[in-house]
Amino acid sequence: MCRSIAESATVPESCELGCNVVIENDVIIGEGTAIGHGSVICQGSIIGSDVTIAQNVVIGKRPASGAASRRKVKDVGPLRIGDGSIIGACAVLYAGSVYGKKVMVADLATVREGCTVGDESIIGRCVSVECNTSIGQRARIQTATHVTGDMTIEDDVFIGPGACSTNDRKILGKDKHHKGPVLKKGCAIGSNACILAGVTVEEGALLGAGSVATRDIAAGEVHVGVPARLLRKVEE
Amino acid sequence: MCRSIAESATVPESCELGCNVVIENDVIIGEGTAIGHGSVICQGSIIGSDVTIAQNVVIGKRPASGAASRRKVKDVGPLRIGDGSIIGACAVLYAGSVYGKKVMVADLATVREGCTVGDESIIGRCVSVECNTSIGQRARIQTATHVTGDMTIEDDVFIGPGACSTNDRKILGKDKHHKGPVLKKGCAIGSNACILAGVTVEEGALLGAGSVATRDIAAGEVHVGVPARLLRKVEE
Amino acid sequence: MCRSIAESATVPESCELGCNVVIENDVIIGEGTAIGHGSVICQGSIIGSDVTIAQNVVIGKRPASGAASRRKVKDVGPLRIGDGSIIGACAVLYAGSVYGKKVMVADLATVREGCTVGDESIIGRCVSVECNTSIGQRARIQTATHVTGDMTIEDDVFIGPGACSTNDRKILGKDKHHKGPVLKKGCAIGSNACILAGVTVEEGALLGAGSVATRDIAAGEVHVGVPARLLRKVEE
Repeated sequence: MCRSIAESATVPESCELGCNVVIENDVIIGEGTAIGHGSVICQGSIIGSDVTIAQNVVIGKRPASGAASRRKVKDVGPLRIGDGSIIGACAVLYAGSVYGKKVMVADLATVREGCTVGDESIIGRCVSVECNTSIGQRARIQTATHVTGDMTIEDDVFIGPGACSTNDRKILGKDKHHKGPVLKKGCAIGSNACILAGVTVEEGALLGAGSVATRDIAAGEVHVGVPARLLRKVEE
Repeated sequence: MCRSIAESATVPESCELGCNVVIENDVIIGEGTAIGHGSVICQGSIIGSDVTIAQNVVIGKRPASGAASRRKVKDVGPLRIGDGSIIGACAVLYAGSVYGKKVMVADLATVREGCTVGDESIIGRCVSVECNTSIGQRARIQTATHVTGDMTIEDDVFIGPGACSTNDRKILGKDKHHKGPVLKKGCAIGSNACILAGVTVEEGALLGAGSVATRDIAAGEVHVGVPARLLRKVEE
Repeated sequence: MCRSIAESATVPESCELGCNVVIENDVIIGEGTAIGHGSVICQGSIIGSDVTIAQNVVIGKRPASGAASRRKVKDVGPLRIGDGSIIGACAVLYAGSVYGKKVMVADLATVREGCTVGDESIIGRCVSVECNTSIGQRARIQTATHVTGDMTIEDDVFIGPGACSTNDRKILGKDKHHKGPVLKKGCAIGSNACILAGVTVEEGALLGAGSVATRDIAAGEVHVGVPARLLRKVEE
């Protein structure tokens, strides 16, 4: 029952801690939260009540960039997780992102800094979310999807498994301007589809499985193909 | 050499246990099995003889659903792993699935509850398998593939890296009926291909790389494209 | 503060070690290197100076094959990581690969044996790299990409998120000859694109997002579609 809990951490007696849990300085944990074996809560993280954190999770990792990365590391503020959320095994969540209530981040998923995730949204297993992306409430991002940085995902959006998105149209260019796609309320992205930088998918629209969206999709339209073209209107 | 082994667990002396291993209540482990550093074996898991479990693995995780998930959590029974199987590092395997003999589940792969995996099948690195999927013997599911729930993969099926599958055709609809694809004996799915809900790929058929299968593929046929169409017969 | 450090390991006092770190026999670590909580450094690994290794990482894992795998396990030599490199959380790196200086391997990425990775290259989050692949200097392999075995990626290559590659064209055939793609200096691969076995992408060429490259792409050309065809020349 080897654990390491910093003296400056706030860990109520109602919390359930697994073996080999590490809690660093200045962490604040709410009542009734459970942390699985081998999980690490990094310095300054703020975790709500009744949160369930599975095994071998890393919470509140600070960003570190490689030599060739174009983003600089800065102080990103603490990670915050809302009440009743669930974090899966081997997930890696960065400092500087804020999660609402009853959010689910599944196993082996990872979310970078600067993101917001609304109440009751699901980030599926093996999903990767880059920096500074905004995710609304009740969004469902399914397994193995890649969510790029500087992207907007509104309430009730559905993204099928294995979908992909980008925030950079001129990949051979030198002047970089990152602009992620915008997915409006209640739209749906099919499995293994790809949404290019700057594309807006309007309310209730649908991009078919395996399609590549190179231009905006109007509200209520279904687009399919590589590149995606109008197929029909969404059935009522 | 910090370990936590429950008194009610059965761990023969012939087992080799790494540092920081956690074995919960009522676990049963066979002779000659090795468990790597930092791995967690959850309550009630049943592991055969001569199994190799790598480092930082989570075995027998119990399901937990997010607020917006449409599946309810139920008692799923124990996880069972057959003799001579190999489980990779940082893999996450749920309770309630049964693995045959000499199965390989590679690093960072994850398999949900209610699945069966036949003898000598390979589940590659970073593969995600959803609930209630049946995988036959000697199947080879390559790296980074997503296998949906309620899917059938028969003996000797090959799935290339990065392929994807879905079990839900009406993603904007409200009445949900999940029906995963059926991959018949010895068929092959190309890299980065996508197989939609309800599609059957017959024996020995082939779906090309990057293609999207929206309809059934007859035995011995090669289909390619988005959506996939007949290209030719498989060469003998 | 539970740690297990083998007596035969070389760990300078200037190293910073987290809780529950395991360092096996004959490991050699340089000055000023930091290893996060729960990380495992396997036998014989050679790690440079000022390397940052995050939490729950597995470094120097020895290969193990499943019953149906066509590759045999052999002695692959030690893993070597150059000075100033950064390794992300829950990454799994095999023995027998050599990393240059200031390399970044991000969270949840995994690289098999027999690979070389040049100075200042980035291997993104959730990327999987198979055996015997050569990666040059300053390559940027983005999140969730699958890099096949026996592949060549030259200096300054860019691969967008979720791309895929294969080293086997005759997936139903019995005589296997693996030949990964060759990506020449400074070429770029779009997000979710797929490059088939044996394809060469020449210098400065570009494969569009979601495209499938079935044939070679000449220097300075842009190819798109499934299968990919010439669209235009790269703009100067």
